[in-house]
Amino acid sequence: MHAYRTHSCAGLTKDNVGDTVRLSGWVHRVRDHGGVLFIDLRDHYGVTQVLCDPDSPVFAEVEKVRSEWCIRIDGNVKARDPELINPKIPTGEIEVFIRDMEVLGAAEELPLMVFGDQEYPEETRLRYRYLDLRREEMQRNMTLRSDVVASMRRRMWDQAFREYQTPIITASSPEGARDFLVPSRLHPGKFYALPQAPQLFKQLIMVSGFDKYFQIAPCFRDEDPRADRSPTDFYQLDMEMSFVEQQDVFDTIQPVIEGVFEEFGGGKKVDKHWPQISYADAAKWYGTDKPDLRNPIKMQDTSEHFRGSGFAIFAKLLEQDGTEIRAIPAPGGGSRKFCDRMNSFAQKEGLPGMGYIFWRDGENGMEAAGPLAKNIGPERTEAIRTQLGLGKGDAAFFLGGKPSSFERVAGKARDVIGEELGLTDKDRFAFAWIVDFPMYEADEETGGIDFSHNPFSMPQGGLDALSGDPLSVLGYQYDLACNGYELVSGAIRNHRLDVMIKAFELAGYDEAEVKKRFGGLVNAFQYGAPPHGGCAAGIDRIVMLLAEEQNIREVIMFPMNQRAEDLMMNAPSDPTNEQLRELHLRVIPQED
Amino acid sequence: MHAYRTHSCAGLTKDNVGDTVRLSGWVHRVRDHGGVLFIDLRDHYGVTQVLCDPDSPVFAEVEKVRSEWCIRIDGNVKARDPELINPKIPTGEIEVFIRDMEVLGAAEELPLMVFGDQEYPEETRLRYRYLDLRREEMQRNMTLRSDVVASMRRRMWDQAFREYQTPIITASSPEGARDFLVPSRLHPGKFYALPQAPQLFKQLIMVSGFDKYFQIAPCFRDEDPRADRSPTDFYQLDMEMSFVEQQDVFDTIQPVIEGVFEEFGGGKKVDKHWPQISYADAAKWYGTDKPDLRNPIKMQDTSEHFRGSGFAIFAKLLEQDGTEIRAIPAPGGGSRKFCDRMNSFAQKEGLPGMGYIFWRDGENGMEAAGPLAKNIGPERTEAIRTQLGLGKGDAAFFLGGKPSSFERVAGKARDVIGEELGLTDKDRFAFAWIVDFPMYEADEETGGIDFSHNPFSMPQGGLDALSGDPLSVLGYQYDLACNGYELVSGAIRNHRLDVMIKAFELAGYDEAEVKKRFGGLVNAFQYGAPPHGGCAAGIDRIVMLLAEEQNIREVIMFPMNQRAEDLMMNAPSDPTNEQLRELHLRVIPQED
Repeated sequence: MHAYRTHSCAGLTKDNVGDTVRLSGWVHRVRDHGGVLFIDLRDHYGVTQVLCDPDSPVFAEVEKVRSEWCIRIDGNVKARDPELINPKIPTGEIEVFIRDMEVLGAAEELPLMVFGDQEYPEETRLRYRYLDLRREEMQRNMTLRSDVVASMRRRMWDQAFREYQTPIITASSPEGARDFLVPSRLHPGKFYALPQAPQLFKQLIMVSGFDKYFQIAPCFRDEDPRADRSPTDFYQLDMEMSFVEQQDVFDTIQPVIEGVFEEFGGGKKVDKHWPQISYADAAKWYGTDKPDLRNPIKMQDTSEHFRGSGFAIFAKLLEQDGTEIRAIPAPGGGSRKFCDRMNSFAQKEGLPGMGYIFWRDGENGMEAAGPLAKNIGPERTEAIRTQLGLGKGDAAFFLGGKPSSFERVAGKARDVIGEELGLTDKDRFAFAWIVDFPMYEADEETGGIDFSHNPFSMPQGGLDALSGDPLSVLGYQYDLACNGYELVSGAIRNHRLDVMIKAFELAGYDEAEVKKRFGGLVNAFQYGAPPHGGCAAGIDRIVMLLAEEQNIREVIMFPMNQRAEDLMMNAPSDPTNEQLRELHLRVIPQED
Repeated sequence: MHAYRTHSCAGLTKDNVGDTVRLSGWVHRVRDHGGVLFIDLRDHYGVTQVLCDPDSPVFAEVEKVRSEWCIRIDGNVKARDPELINPKIPTGEIEVFIRDMEVLGAAEELPLMVFGDQEYPEETRLRYRYLDLRREEMQRNMTLRSDVVASMRRRMWDQAFREYQTPIITASSPEGARDFLVPSRLHPGKFYALPQAPQLFKQLIMVSGFDKYFQIAPCFRDEDPRADRSPTDFYQLDMEMSFVEQQDVFDTIQPVIEGVFEEFGGGKKVDKHWPQISYADAAKWYGTDKPDLRNPIKMQDTSEHFRGSGFAIFAKLLEQDGTEIRAIPAPGGGSRKFCDRMNSFAQKEGLPGMGYIFWRDGENGMEAAGPLAKNIGPERTEAIRTQLGLGKGDAAFFLGGKPSSFERVAGKARDVIGEELGLTDKDRFAFAWIVDFPMYEADEETGGIDFSHNPFSMPQGGLDALSGDPLSVLGYQYDLACNGYELVSGAIRNHRLDVMIKAFELAGYDEAEVKKRFGGLVNAFQYGAPPHGGCAAGIDRIVMLLAEEQNIREVIMFPMNQRAEDLMMNAPSDPTNEQLRELHLRVIPQED
């Protein structure tokens, strides 16, 4: 007989009745039913009920075991009485009578119960992560993560991609976030950096002629604490391919993401049609570049109906350049109570409020209600209703000004309206490619021109486009939005050195600076660079969506806390003097 | 038509004759045959011959292209004349006549030729790695590595292991090598470390109840330069399982490694029987704990034949405690020339020499030759021959003293003898488990007791064994040797806190020190730790063996040079003052 087990704790069925078996696992819970001890013995695979009474030669020892002791038992498999059968678990028809027992690992008093649903502060959970991870939900989340990653890998291999590892100890990457530095001992005073992403390396892999690359890649950013992200690192499905256009990348990654959501989405509907929406349209229709398309509401420009109208605030606003009146249709929102609540919401978000119109049963059929309708009169009101396709029982909200002043709140209001009116289909994953991102944006303080996203993307129109107004240049850059989250981001890269130099020049970097900062890539592009593009999908976020978790730490085995500390392993910690001496470093005492 | 290609450069066959196709790739080489230009167009998948003559509308442009330019061509597929068919490549029956061409990326003068076999200094190769990687051998090595890793993953999944990621930014691990440190910005003066191996985390995963874990894991060690290893990091197939004994780990990993060698070993014989050899026997028989079993030579203790014999040097040596005379049989080495050469080899390695006997045709049949034989006389000589199973045409070499003084050279001599006499079967992968490693060793300088290998291994005999002589305690610790390399190392872990405290006590660490240094694990073991064990296989080395490469940098995409520098990306480099300020660090100028 094996030293520890003949079966897992999920392995015994009625077919084993009469067998002598050996099981190992943890004491999930113990119940004492009038001198008969029932133990739920748990391992990674399941739970088996084992029992012991004074007839067992090891009754006295079994009486001593407590929750989370790790034990090995030998015993006989017995059929449960029909009324005691538990159809919910695979082992529900049997139980094992204990004949022998060995304590493999006893447990002290538990700081955190594995059995049951008690909630614990996050610090406790992370300090005793090995107990927290034994809980059913965490076992499920971690195996889900593992299975999702394996499925991604398989789907990439199926499309003839190979996985290549890129360096983790390397030079600063130009992603724009803060690097983690690693001091060099052999080169005192010099530092390596951990990669913010493998972008430069994957581009070099394309220049090296490998054609198709992917990697489940750790990325490192020294971020300031925020609840919904890891302060140190995250994983992405990183991919790149040569001799492709934007649509080729879409056609490659869609089946991977769609397949993973089909496989692990718990039966929720997974959209097959992924619309391509320009960055500009996304802002106009949804107020965000990561719209939640489960919500059918699409905002519209209704400026024309307010220009010169009796609603002085809007009419006056529209006299300024670059302003508009945006409408958020709210089908089914046609009650004063709802409209007032949404108006308060906007005020809480820092706006003066949202004007609204709603349509209800009136004396002569449908009538438009709300102060706005009165001010602009029935004709304009009706024109608005027609444009928005609304009817009785519906409402519309209006925000005015420069889009940048209200778009964020408009997007949020759209979410809340969709949610409150039950328009947002919760049992669905809705995807959209956001395309045509602007290459540049104006720095609001200095008025200067900055890259708005990735400086390594190919500008649409190439060199020619860069001779006009930088703010009108679009890039072959794209994001994938799903249910309001950004899941994927990517671009067709700028592989032409002349175009790259010019693109950086517009953002205020001269050629020497570009060569200094990105020398590796610039040099490589001098030796026959192929056109290439790709993307990266956020694995932590995809698993969060699939596991229906709100906190990234629920889908990471050993996460840092929000202060970037590992309380279990005591990191970060004080270096030894010897370590600092070897690195030629001195810590400067803090003054405040 | 696709913007860049209708086929890969390996995709066209006779079936495509007459088709208009589009190809993209690199100009591998250009030949001008009397005004007709032949270009070998290369991509990741293969090479296609394209040609152009003055009838082509783009002849003038095609004339300008040079090696390693990246181009796109359109053309017509034509059958080659029968005498020009190249049966060695898939596209050897066709060629493509160029009708249109686009330069996708031109190339400057090349610092390194992709075509041909010219050798370049390693610094050149690493600085222009993107060119070096385009060479056929590097393309093959990198795809091999990728395929080996994927195969390992598949084989682990097939055995119901899941891959879980462990932290890369973490606390110092106790592997004993030097950590790479990462200064914390949020906690000035404190440092994280990159993991030397995921050992503590994989043990915690077992305590967390996950039962079976594996990971293709990056490991980081700040090593001093050495030719055959990476100075910064390496990859291992890391695995761990709960409720197992040593044989279970062997039974799990053998099919993985064996399968990978079968799959990628190029048809070489892969041994199915993996003997288990104790550490002590390996030292005695092979002079090393990573023996090359392709070589059939097994050394033997022949002390008895020399004790009190006429060969004074050995006879005298044997009067000292702990000495012996070790014989290296050399079947087929029975010539004075060979024996003298091996004697010189030993002298070059710092020994006084190796005594030898060889057997040859004499006047009365077989006779033993060499000074040793004369000194000890025919009876003892014959007894030695019988013990070693040698005969005419064979030789034996003898080394005397304390084994520690000659074992290393003996092992090397065994290799050289096997090699020179053609005994070592080059077309074979021969494996052996080396087991029963001693837990402790005496520090030669201080006489104190140290852990000889991994302090976290379970001592054989548990707590009881630790009350006797520490130097006689063996651990459940094992290595896998293959063709003279250590490929795998592992252990059944010590999951019992009382045994761990005692084991460390013997090596001079008191309980408080153990709790301070390994607090994470010690705490975890208080809450129901399961018995567990596992191993880690060195991926870089396995790929080296399969690719028949001697240098680890041949199987890593972007390796550091031996001075731990990345010349292509310029790492390590000077930090900015702002970075140092944020980290509260100052670099101490070097005085020498």
